Amino acid sequence: MEAITESERDAVYKTIYSRRDTRGEFKSDPIPDEVLLRILDAAHHAPSVGFMQPWDFIVVKSPEVKKKIKAGFEIAHQEAAEMFPKEKQEQYKSFKLEGIVEAPVGICVTCDRSRTGSTVIGRTANPEMDLYSAVCAVQNLWLAARAENLGVGWMSIIHHDLLKEILGIPEKIVPIAYLNVGFVSHFHEQPELEKKGWLPRQALSSLLHWDQWQTEQVEKP
Amino acid sequence: MEAITESERDAVYKTIYSRRDTRGEFKSDPIPDEVLLRILDAAHHAPSVGFMQPWDFIVVKSPEVKKKIKAGFEIAHQEAAEMFPKEKQEQYKSFKLEGIVEAPVGICVTCDRSRTGSTVIGRTANPEMDLYSAVCAVQNLWLAARAENLGVGWMSIIHHDLLKEILGIPEKIVPIAYLNVGFVSHFHEQPELEKKGWLPRQALSSLLHWDQWQTEQVEKP
Repeated sequence: MEAITESERDAVYKTIYSRRDTRGEFKSDPIPDEVLLRILDAAHHAPSVGFMQPWDFIVVKSPEVKKKIKAGFEIAHQEAAEMFPKEKQEQYKSFKLEGIVEAPVGICVTCDRSRTGSTVIGRTANPEMDLYSAVCAVQNLWLAARAENLGVGWMSIIHHDLLKEILGIPEKIVPIAYLNVGFVSHFHEQPELEKKGWLPRQALSSLLHWDQWQTEQVEKP
Repeated sequence: MEAITESERDAVYKTIYSRRDTRGEFKSDPIPDEVLLRILDAAHHAPSVGFMQPWDFIVVKSPEVKKKIKAGFEIAHQEAAEMFPKEKQEQYKSFKLEGIVEAPVGICVTCDRSRTGSTVIGRTANPEMDLYSAVCAVQNLWLAARAENLGVGWMSIIHHDLLKEILGIPEKIVPIAYLNVGFVSHFHEQPELEKKGWLPRQALSSLLHWDQWQTEQVEKP
């Protein structure tokens, strides 16, 4: 199999560093079908435990379905606001945290835990591995989308039981992510929560350990 | 922020499609420090819920530590073999499933669930979101490594309590992945479990649903 060249490597890093969680910058322009299929196929080529490929993808374009998901967000968002300390609640409420209705496409990524039977290579000691495979599919999709100059936002503020009801997802299937996807007016230079002072970017050096966990590094800002 | 060009996009797809789970092809050549730091920094630029950056990275180069991890694998691997139906056990045992000792570097990716306090933006309705963020870091690292022509194998056949003991990981920190990383003799054209007939690649079309879960597609091979 062909080696990756330096300029190809640099393109991968450019994509990784310029990927953002998009909420407020979606344009309504439709995503061409061939582009949508390319990012879904990239997701399908994520690593999966025991080659299980446990994922499914529900592509949402219907305004009615989006409206129901938005209502589900509103419920969980209201509950969430009350969970923050009083002094943080106003700032939390000021953030735009989703683009459910504005984004032309929603993609729900799910995990079918029994897809290939009960015993799966690599999932024997760690049963969560199939869920993690589906998350790898999300990240493949996200980077492929960025490479197509599409923004993606992971909208996790909804109760999954309600999401399953809205999308008709069977009982045994686990929702992993609901993603808003679309072209954008621009990508932010920095993650928004960093720019707005919610949390700082940690220094990489503070996250590295060598051969053993370094206890003095457990404390984080 | 600059747009991704078509050739850059193609480089991202080339990297996604040629990424493999490496077990048997590791070369002992050391990974230059600057390359190792680049793939770790790519991991650190994964999306994280509420900009939590819950990950840490334990870089393992010590042969003694690797030997202990290999012994941990042997225990879980033996247990796993007995979990498969009798007719599958021999094939399971014939697979090489890790390169713990051969790979020059191991990287344990962990999740500190209380890093930024108990209430996290986006983790309120779905508490697993921080674990999923750490998985996104694994996938960023994996693709960055492939772009550096490094192989990565996710070695999930070990009990995490033992892994924590070996690496001195504190009680409250959750191991997400133990990765073997190194240059390789070659990358396989296809995933090995596909090539060896363990499971087929599913058709993307069988995994797609439109606005609602399509029940006729629930049945998989």
